[in-house]
Amino acid sequence: MIQVDLNCDLGESFGNYKCGLDEEVISYISSANVACGFHASDPLVMAKTVAMAKEHHVCVGAHPGYPDLVGFGRRNMNIAPKEVKAMVQYQIGALMAFCKANQMVLSHVKPHGAMYNMAGKDEALAMAMCEGIAEVDSNLILLGLSGSKMLDAAQKTGLKSAKEVFADRAYEEDGSLVARTKEGAVITDENLAMERVISMVKYGKVTAITGKEIEVEADSICVHGDGVKAVEFVKKISERLKAEGIVIAPMKK
Amino acid sequence: MIQVDLNCDLGESFGNYKCGLDEEVISYISSANVACGFHASDPLVMAKTVAMAKEHHVCVGAHPGYPDLVGFGRRNMNIAPKEVKAMVQYQIGALMAFCKANQMVLSHVKPHGAMYNMAGKDEALAMAMCEGIAEVDSNLILLGLSGSKMLDAAQKTGLKSAKEVFADRAYEEDGSLVARTKEGAVITDENLAMERVISMVKYGKVTAITGKEIEVEADSICVHGDGVKAVEFVKKISERLKAEGIVIAPMKK
Amino acid sequence: MIQVDLNCDLGESFGNYKCGLDEEVISYISSANVACGFHASDPLVMAKTVAMAKEHHVCVGAHPGYPDLVGFGRRNMNIAPKEVKAMVQYQIGALMAFCKANQMVLSHVKPHGAMYNMAGKDEALAMAMCEGIAEVDSNLILLGLSGSKMLDAAQKTGLKSAKEVFADRAYEEDGSLVARTKEGAVITDENLAMERVISMVKYGKVTAITGKEIEVEADSICVHGDGVKAVEFVKKISERLKAEGIVIAPMKK
Amino acid sequence: MIQVDLNCDLGESFGNYKCGLDEEVISYISSANVACGFHASDPLVMAKTVAMAKEHHVCVGAHPGYPDLVGFGRRNMNIAPKEVKAMVQYQIGALMAFCKANQMVLSHVKPHGAMYNMAGKDEALAMAMCEGIAEVDSNLILLGLSGSKMLDAAQKTGLKSAKEVFADRAYEEDGSLVARTKEGAVITDENLAMERVISMVKYGKVTAITGKEIEVEADSICVHGDGVKAVEFVKKISERLKAEGIVIAPMKK
Repeated sequence: MIQVDLNCDLGESFGNYKCGLDEEVISYISSANVACGFHASDPLVMAKTVAMAKEHHVCVGAHPGYPDLVGFGRRNMNIAPKEVKAMVQYQIGALMAFCKANQMVLSHVKPHGAMYNMAGKDEALAMAMCEGIAEVDSNLILLGLSGSKMLDAAQKTGLKSAKEVFADRAYEEDGSLVARTKEGAVITDENLAMERVISMVKYGKVTAITGKEIEVEADSICVHGDGVKAVEFVKKISERLKAEGIVIAPMKK
Repeated sequence: MIQVDLNCDLGESFGNYKCGLDEEVISYISSANVACGFHASDPLVMAKTVAMAKEHHVCVGAHPGYPDLVGFGRRNMNIAPKEVKAMVQYQIGALMAFCKANQMVLSHVKPHGAMYNMAGKDEALAMAMCEGIAEVDSNLILLGLSGSKMLDAAQKTGLKSAKEVFADRAYEEDGSLVARTKEGAVITDENLAMERVISMVKYGKVTAITGKEIEVEADSICVHGDGVKAVEFVKKISERLKAEGIVIAPMKK
Repeated sequence: MIQVDLNCDLGESFGNYKCGLDEEVISYISSANVACGFHASDPLVMAKTVAMAKEHHVCVGAHPGYPDLVGFGRRNMNIAPKEVKAMVQYQIGALMAFCKANQMVLSHVKPHGAMYNMAGKDEALAMAMCEGIAEVDSNLILLGLSGSKMLDAAQKTGLKSAKEVFADRAYEEDGSLVARTKEGAVITDENLAMERVISMVKYGKVTAITGKEIEVEADSICVHGDGVKAVEFVKKISERLKAEGIVIAPMKK
Repeated sequence: MIQVDLNCDLGESFGNYKCGLDEEVISYISSANVACGFHASDPLVMAKTVAMAKEHHVCVGAHPGYPDLVGFGRRNMNIAPKEVKAMVQYQIGALMAFCKANQMVLSHVKPHGAMYNMAGKDEALAMAMCEGIAEVDSNLILLGLSGSKMLDAAQKTGLKSAKEVFADRAYEEDGSLVARTKEGAVITDENLAMERVISMVKYGKVTAITGKEIEVEADSICVHGDGVKAVEFVKKISERLKAEGIVIAPMKK
């Protein structure tokens, strides 16, 4: 039996500001990456999001970000590794409180935006982040890009990790994502995106932007709930995976 | 054997801004109320403060506050109980992460400033706060003013609680603190303050502002580390308590 | 010739978060109250909003609020008058920079949410606010609720003021708004709301919740752009006012 | 007659947090760079600082920074030029309000920390910043490092500029500052620092780290008020300059 996780960023509303169709996309996913108040969200949004995840039997992971609400955590910031470590621990802990209040256990950590990108390339940052996670709970799974420094750091610090793949992004031959600035970086054809997902999950293979077939490991597929189209695509992927006999289930510990 | 706890707010620095003589006062206390990033502190300060508390064998409690950095959490804010509940859970959880990273267990919760004052008088607020704490960890001790709504709420929600007394504040006959706006509210004579502490701890009695002797329960004495004089007073109290044969020790579970 | 101003809160988006149909409602109004970054908005949103107002020949006013992004400035905060004065000056100045960059002159100030409500009832707060405004630019018009402490304070400090009326709110006999907690406080019948607006603007009269006809002064009508229905209502009011021969124009200096 | 400006960052306290000996250093300087609430300060601190500057006949300039209170604006952030432009305009305007309230005119702008460093090297950022300043008030003087992209951008946008020199920093042969990571970057010998200042101001010359004498233009000397030693050094520099017959006076328009 083949199984794969569908992960989606949730709980990115803030105060009076609504963001994301959380209530709709949650029906199709197996893991929620819940924002922790630094790049988005607030305590009340976190409380509601975790309660909603429990109701839908969806695993809760932390989605820590840089302290940059106005930039939604998407701007690179030159923060010292020991400070990133502390801010990741802070955010994980904050979310754990809501998990406890709902008798749930935090399952994973997926860094957000600029933190995800920077820790994917910077070893010192990746190590600080993983050490921080392991110190708080060594059972947490780090969810990150296959081939990134983050996954290396997870291994070095003894953290379990899961590899995520993207339905809508092209890959270089080395398995890294094609930079968004390059032509062809984003795959807009939904059917093509779907076929690629099936190929990655079922056969561990995908066609790189150069045309060469490469190997990829797909523990989790990253999906989005930030618009009507996005949610419809998640529904389609979910149905297609089931039709292929693939089980949608949380990452394995 | 009589024992009493000495509690002090710690870790109220923020980024580049230093605040409090934490390194000096920590030698004399048994419990630290650590700020959690809403009214003061930041993740790195929290990490350092918890590590320092561990080194000095001092118990760590959460010191959650209102989200008002510029007002240091001292300004009343009209926040809905369910939102206060969520923001207390968030802050407790964040601090717990640093406790876990230091193999420590969070011992207590003492709300800060305006939250302490408002939850002391507003039952709905006090209940929301205590329910929030109990949901996260029902072994946490609520540290609050004797006779306040907070302690009533702790009892109703099944939380353990500890009663704190103030060396430098006058009491009304009903055991409440004399409002700071009234003459005589603050006791500036150090020797008098010391005698009152000894009387409260040893005999459970103190002279109210009216002159009448009243009963008080003193589980913990609130001391301050925000200046050289304050730290000297803590040292003196600590020495005097020991001279009286009173053991300074964390609140009992 | 009768004329009246239509004012609307604009520029309340924040970073990645969109809020309000600014581009649609701006066609129908004569004055925009632009958020200044404390309860909503950010520098880039302010720059865009002022540029848009210029393009549509709409007057720009400041919409200062409490420093409470997560509460959208709607929560009462116990802030000292001198601090409110400084924070109003700060926000007015910030918005003036964008007016200057667009060769516009800031026309008015309308406090937001909790600041509007608190300064409407608290004389010290209202005086601090008006003194602050007058110190920065004594030509600014204070836009506020008729009969409120704010308008009294404007008069005492020599500030011009304009009285705003609400299409969708019931009035007490003394001209104050019926509290939202009372039945009948909000007028949901669009046609009735429209008739009341016409009566207030044309004849200076409206029927209080008691049934008695009272006098009101209507320099400006407060309208909303926070949803499709709200914008449609603004369009209807705008058309009806024109049909009655009433000119929609900014507040007079 | 030779004259030079002494500039110092002021008003970097925040809420309950004190920072800098503003009251002491202000007696010796001619220009204050006042923080604007993004990297430090708050409206009340700004109000007090501008009033104090007026009392001491010290020119007020804006000291805008990145929106990073916890990092004191010292961390590089990857912010789009148009957003930096807007945030500079916002901060300048906010400070202008306090100048107006004190019947003063804002004289100059000196970016803070990471913004100063990044705009010194990045042309697009420097241009955006200078265009932003010029749009708000084309009479403002940009105070920046001699030879930096900022000063080039000031010239291109028609802004006046002033060149600042550092008493405690070594220079490369091209007039740039020696990176802090290199040995010898900071000059700790007070007497040497003093001689270098006199040489730069009087003769336009200084010895580079290589030993070669280079030319520098010194419109303004950057001094610090963040400690007792720093203030004493400012006093000494001030006395020495006067003894040399050099007049300490604000930058010329």
